[in-house]
Amino acid sequence: MADVTTVVDEYIAAWNAIDAAERRDLVARVFAEDATYLDPMLEGTGTDGIDAMIAAAQGQFPGARFELAGPPDAHHDVVRFSWHLYGSDGAKIVTGHDYAQVADDGRLRAVTGFLDQ
Amino acid sequence: MADVTTVVDEYIAAWNAIDAAERRDLVARVFAEDATYLDPMLEGTGTDGIDAMIAAAQGQFPGARFELAGPPDAHHDVVRFSWHLYGSDGAKIVTGHDYAQVADDGRLRAVTGFLDQ
Repeated sequence: MADVTTVVDEYIAAWNAIDAAERRDLVARVFAEDATYLDPMLEGTGTDGIDAMIAAAQGQFPGARFELAGPPDAHHDVVRFSWHLYGSDGAKIVTGHDYAQVADDGRLRAVTGFLDQ
Repeated sequence: MADVTTVVDEYIAAWNAIDAAERRDLVARVFAEDATYLDPMLEGTGTDGIDAMIAAAQGQFPGARFELAGPPDAHHDVVRFSWHLYGSDGAKIVTGHDYAQVADDGRLRAVTGFLDQ
């Protein structure tokens, strides 16, 4: 079972992976096969659906990068963490907060994202 | 369907309701019959289980009161909100952050709480 900190690091890496094969590999390592993702703007289900969703988001913000805002906070089978999205010019676009259920194998099963105002 | 702001207000009221009948009524209004609650220290399932869980928490912190730290943030069928817990002497004990799924009837179905460090 993967450590939750590693999974969250790889989750951020998946959002940042521009290379399609690398991104797909990270998505498969991070998300359970039946995982769901839901935030105010994006929605995806399963490895392929979430990979396509991330690819579409990358297309909307070319050169943008996600960074964890701090260490993840986990208890039982849940985890939360905050992140910043920086544009290609280095300016912060938005800060968000994700909450996820963790499957038995350590991968994320249901991710819900919120955007800070 | 109840407005999510009303449901979250009543959720906080349920945690503050010392009168057993009032608390049970609020819990039934706020939580779906099959609702679950999970935070680092407490766990409860269903109307009766969650009511008993809240009663036990009240017994551990006599005179303590919860207050919302700000308006709830909702999208799709999910909501998040922060709260402060004040002791009977008015000093802040802890700040927490709850996530919940919202059932079709507006009640909370799965609540996950985290405590800020």
